[in-house]
Amino acid sequence: MPSRTLAATASLSIGTLLLLFTTAQPVLAQAMSTLEIAEAIHEYRVEREQRIVQDFAELLSFPNVATNLDDMDANAEHIMGLLDERGFSTRVLQAGGAPYVYAEMMTPGAEETLLIYAHFDGQPVQVENWAYPPFQPTLLDAPLQDGGQAIDIASVTGAFDPEWRIYARSAGDDKMPVIAMIHVIDALRANGIGLSVNLKLLLDGEEERGSPTLGQVIDDNPGLLDADLLLFCDGPMHQSRRAQLVFGVRGGRTLDITTYGANRPLHSGHYGNWAPNPIMQMAYLLTSMRDETGRILIDGYYDNVATLSESERAAIAAMPSIEEQLKDELAVHTPEGAGTRIEELVTLPAFNARGIAGGGVGNQGRNIILTETTVSLNLRLVPNQQPDRIRRIIEEHIEGEGYYIVHEDPTDEILRNHAKVVKLDWRGGGSSGLRTSMDGEMAQRLIALMQEMTPDLILTPTMGGGLPLNAFADRMETPIIVLPLANHDNNQHGENENLRLQNLWDAMAVYGVVLARFGQP
Amino acid sequence: MPSRTLAATASLSIGTLLLLFTTAQPVLAQAMSTLEIAEAIHEYRVEREQRIVQDFAELLSFPNVATNLDDMDANAEHIMGLLDERGFSTRVLQAGGAPYVYAEMMTPGAEETLLIYAHFDGQPVQVENWAYPPFQPTLLDAPLQDGGQAIDIASVTGAFDPEWRIYARSAGDDKMPVIAMIHVIDALRANGIGLSVNLKLLLDGEEERGSPTLGQVIDDNPGLLDADLLLFCDGPMHQSRRAQLVFGVRGGRTLDITTYGANRPLHSGHYGNWAPNPIMQMAYLLTSMRDETGRILIDGYYDNVATLSESERAAIAAMPSIEEQLKDELAVHTPEGAGTRIEELVTLPAFNARGIAGGGVGNQGRNIILTETTVSLNLRLVPNQQPDRIRRIIEEHIEGEGYYIVHEDPTDEILRNHAKVVKLDWRGGGSSGLRTSMDGEMAQRLIALMQEMTPDLILTPTMGGGLPLNAFADRMETPIIVLPLANHDNNQHGENENLRLQNLWDAMAVYGVVLARFGQP
Repeated sequence: MPSRTLAATASLSIGTLLLLFTTAQPVLAQAMSTLEIAEAIHEYRVEREQRIVQDFAELLSFPNVATNLDDMDANAEHIMGLLDERGFSTRVLQAGGAPYVYAEMMTPGAEETLLIYAHFDGQPVQVENWAYPPFQPTLLDAPLQDGGQAIDIASVTGAFDPEWRIYARSAGDDKMPVIAMIHVIDALRANGIGLSVNLKLLLDGEEERGSPTLGQVIDDNPGLLDADLLLFCDGPMHQSRRAQLVFGVRGGRTLDITTYGANRPLHSGHYGNWAPNPIMQMAYLLTSMRDETGRILIDGYYDNVATLSESERAAIAAMPSIEEQLKDELAVHTPEGAGTRIEELVTLPAFNARGIAGGGVGNQGRNIILTETTVSLNLRLVPNQQPDRIRRIIEEHIEGEGYYIVHEDPTDEILRNHAKVVKLDWRGGGSSGLRTSMDGEMAQRLIALMQEMTPDLILTPTMGGGLPLNAFADRMETPIIVLPLANHDNNQHGENENLRLQNLWDAMAVYGVVLARFGQP
Repeated sequence: MPSRTLAATASLSIGTLLLLFTTAQPVLAQAMSTLEIAEAIHEYRVEREQRIVQDFAELLSFPNVATNLDDMDANAEHIMGLLDERGFSTRVLQAGGAPYVYAEMMTPGAEETLLIYAHFDGQPVQVENWAYPPFQPTLLDAPLQDGGQAIDIASVTGAFDPEWRIYARSAGDDKMPVIAMIHVIDALRANGIGLSVNLKLLLDGEEERGSPTLGQVIDDNPGLLDADLLLFCDGPMHQSRRAQLVFGVRGGRTLDITTYGANRPLHSGHYGNWAPNPIMQMAYLLTSMRDETGRILIDGYYDNVATLSESERAAIAAMPSIEEQLKDELAVHTPEGAGTRIEELVTLPAFNARGIAGGGVGNQGRNIILTETTVSLNLRLVPNQQPDRIRRIIEEHIEGEGYYIVHEDPTDEILRNHAKVVKLDWRGGGSSGLRTSMDGEMAQRLIALMQEMTPDLILTPTMGGGLPLNAFADRMETPIIVLPLANHDNNQHGENENLRLQNLWDAMAVYGVVLARFGQP
């Protein structure tokens, strides 16, 4: 198909695109174009897919809830082994929390330093909800919801279908960058392609807990993490599967709210209609804080929300619409947001009730009136929303609903003396959102390099999720750009998390090109 | 204290009252007064408290969730052993569910038959919430919430403090009648006191499941349960601790409601403000159905509610007010019910959200938007409220809130094609409430006999809870009167269920007097 142009293939994945260039031969990087480098990596990879997938599965088999330090040490040790083999200089950084793995590979003559961030801890798992055990990585021949069947990795002969997916906790969030990195280093080396930058890696062992000691880790190691550009490799790619750079994130706060009934569970017959019902109190409290479209009803909540700049609005307008695709894929008829497109909704504060617990349902139901019910909220904040102020106005709102607020379990005396009592458990101090300018030199150079590979690169002013950017942004001037690599439908944080193999192959291509060419004049 | 009269001691427990009569000697029942019989039982019991408590603890050590048939068989076998030793003729009745234990003791010359009902199954337990394991019965020297400490039953020498409590599942609900019965039979026999009635016992092994096969058990054994009076020994006594007879119960229905988000859990950052949130949907649905005082907002819900008769209103007005005691004991400032007294509130329909589940809270919290949230409701119904009509008007209400109703898990297609979807799981067919007239011959005779023992007997038109009376009421004319025996604060259905020993002693006295004197002309 010689008439096919780059633009015409823009919606194809990088891996597919590269199949069009079959005549490239390994040469020195200085003489190689972006596409020739990507092609070299591709050819190296197709011969070694089984080994790469096996390495990935092995890494995913390490349980990795950040609060279990023994598990995190085992993860760190395994990862350092993989990096040491490739000639990285590695060490553990630790400041009272889970381990961070630091690795560097200095390039003689390189004038610039690239710092790549990823994390190797994962969200807690509810094993009973997983189709396959979360720490027994399983390759499926299609997404689970499409009837995917398990494949024995060792039995595969020939090419791996790039639509196959590996299911395991942290497959998508966020162990894949480690595997992509080690194998692309091998690929560059096998092709005689040198690095154009000094490379530093910081692999976080407690990101899902909000990286509580990251700031201390940075402070304890002055200069160690200095770089010209920080690439944050976390979070899912755009739903269109087009490559993407993201220049901002939302911050957040977590709040658990508990409402109270009597001081002991009461028979719902003998006390029904009399004993306060904490589930009903919670229902009324939640509906006072948020309407059915997701709009937050707390006075002043939107006061400091930064409006989007014209260029940010333009970038959003240029993004492909994914609304119908999402509705079909996620089985949604009417999204929240009253018709505003998702790319704009994620630039606004969000109020998410993420969990609720009180008593049993189904066969665990008992005919009692509960003593308490707890809801867990995670609040997504945007630039200029100060976490302390958010706490203050939420507490004012709850008091306005007639509640007496405590921050520890209430005594009987407190319950007896106040019409309604609520416990607020602010879990961590929270963070504001952040946005990096798209106009800086590093940003412009990265955008240009990425566009050589994938002309329809998506530029996103703000992603919906949070990342531990504040610890860096508070301490250094380094521009921070988020480079998401996982498929958008990776089920991160939920059960049946997975990674689509094509995303791993594409990550190798991007890393290879950036390492080989970013530092070239 | 010779000037002390019966009326002056009316607020004391039966056991304390009997201490005033110390000169009675065992004589034939025909020649003995009610108080002399009770005194004989008292004297027999004080010599054997340790043995009685040990027998109770042993019975309570059998796990007894009705769905575990092996456990229920073990309970039934043990109970039959206890009854066989006393000369009862026993057998298991079973009709596809858990076992029922039937026992009878015919009395030569007796013209009337008394059927006593109790149950030996218990509500499911959440072991982690119990201070002591629910099936390792533990005697405490005070209520748990007052700092009660464990006592080794075997090490007690001398009298057991009647305020001590035994903690275990089913201590209060409802294994105690078995223990009271076997020991009062021993006591009567030791004192040469004969029974005045034929005695039948029906001990239910699946009451907490709503006794699904009780109707079939009755149908399968025509005539076996014929009786002149059915005494239902279940439910807690009045909060004042005064003896009580109850002439009605509430019926009920159970409904689990599930609301839906997307078809897989979504990262709350990337999809927050867009994906439907099932917790919030549930909050809005609940608040549409019930106001903050407990008033049900569903159209037509109160249409068929029977108003109280004048005599029922008078009985309620004569009951002691327990409002302030309850508030202190349960640490409640403002009850539901908008100021109506509890005795009247329980004659009205109640809408109780008994449990809610969706996602995790605290350390189990994950930053996701859930796929679903389930609330479990138990609805208390009163006479003339038909369960089928209640189902219909609730479904109409939910449809009016914009929901598409399913009764099985919805497919992706259903979710995609409807703005809001709800699954309704009606658990069982439910039952109306029932009320027995206070003016019948059996009722009048029992009231008079009880008043001889305890002049301030409380007469309650309707208790708040439900009991499986419909299965009997639908099949026989026998008047049904509820005789509650457990302390009101027994935590039934919740964790840390318990029985106060004085209630066991009082149950023995009541059983003894009724068995010895009810059938006398």
